[in-house]
Amino acid sequence: MEPRISIVTLGVQVLERSRQFYKEAFGWEPASAQETISFYQLGGLVLALYPHNLLAADANAEPEQSGFRGITLAYNVREKTEVAQVMAIAEAAGATIVKPAADTDWGGHGGYLADPDGHLWEIAYNPFFPLNAKGEIEIPTA
Amino acid sequence: MEPRISIVTLGVQVLERSRQFYKEAFGWEPASAQETISFYQLGGLVLALYPHNLLAADANAEPEQSGFRGITLAYNVREKTEVAQVMAIAEAAGATIVKPAADTDWGGHGGYLADPDGHLWEIAYNPFFPLNAKGEIEIPTA
Repeated sequence: MEPRISIVTLGVQVLERSRQFYKEAFGWEPASAQETISFYQLGGLVLALYPHNLLAADANAEPEQSGFRGITLAYNVREKTEVAQVMAIAEAAGATIVKPAADTDWGGHGGYLADPDGHLWEIAYNPFFPLNAKGEIEIPTA
Repeated sequence: MEPRISIVTLGVQVLERSRQFYKEAFGWEPASAQETISFYQLGGLVLALYPHNLLAADANAEPEQSGFRGITLAYNVREKTEVAQVMAIAEAAGATIVKPAADTDWGGHGGYLADPDGHLWEIAYNPFFPLNAKGEIEIPTA
C-alpha cells in the first residue's frame, strides 16, 4: 500500500449543524456538498461529514456509542500564539473546550476542543515538527 | 485556519502489536518510532500510534470505550481489483474483515476492516474520485 489516508469521515448527528460549525469555527467550505454528505479538500486529504447512523450502517456496525473514541485529529499551527486564537474562534462557533491551551510536557503548546458531535481536535504548536510552506509536517529524520 | 489535518492519532492497547500490524498489513514503516509513540509520514499527513490510555489522558477523557466510534478512515485504491488484494493481505496480518469487499450502492467497490484495536478502515475504489499521480483525491468540481 502507498503511504496515505484518503478520507477521514466523521459521523455527525445533524449534518447542517456540522457544516455550519466547520465553516464558522475553522473557516472551511465543502468542495462538494450533497444531501447526506459533505466533502472538504484538505490538501491531499479529504474530510467527509456523514450522518452517524449511516456511517455505522456502512461499516456494518451498531450505531450505539459511548466513552472515549480512541482517536483524535490534530491541527498544528505555525506560531504558539495561534493556538489560543484558533480555540477562541472555535469556542465562539460552538466548540467545547475540553482542555484549555497550555504548555505541554513534550515541549509544545496546545489544547483540545470537541466539535458538536464530540470529535476531538487537538490544536497544537510543536516546535519539533515544523510545517513546510504547504502547511504540512515533514517528520525530521533522526 | 488553513485546510489541513496535521495528525491522525490512533489509540492502541499494545504499541508493538500495532507497529507490526501496520508494517505487515499495510507495508508502512514509521518515520519516527519512540518508546511510547510511532509517527508515519503519509504524504502531507502524519499518522500516530499512541497508547489508548495516554491518549485519553492527554485529551482529558476517561479511557473507557464501547460501541461505534463514529469515525472511519479510508484508503482509496486506483483499480477495483486492488480492494480485494489489500483486504486479503490485511486479513493475513491480523485485520478483522467487518464488511467484505462488494460493489456499493454509490457506484464504487469496497469493504471495511478493523485493525487490532478496532479502528475502522474502508478500502475503496471510487471511480468518481480519481487519484492523482501522488495518490491523492482531487474532488471534482461540479
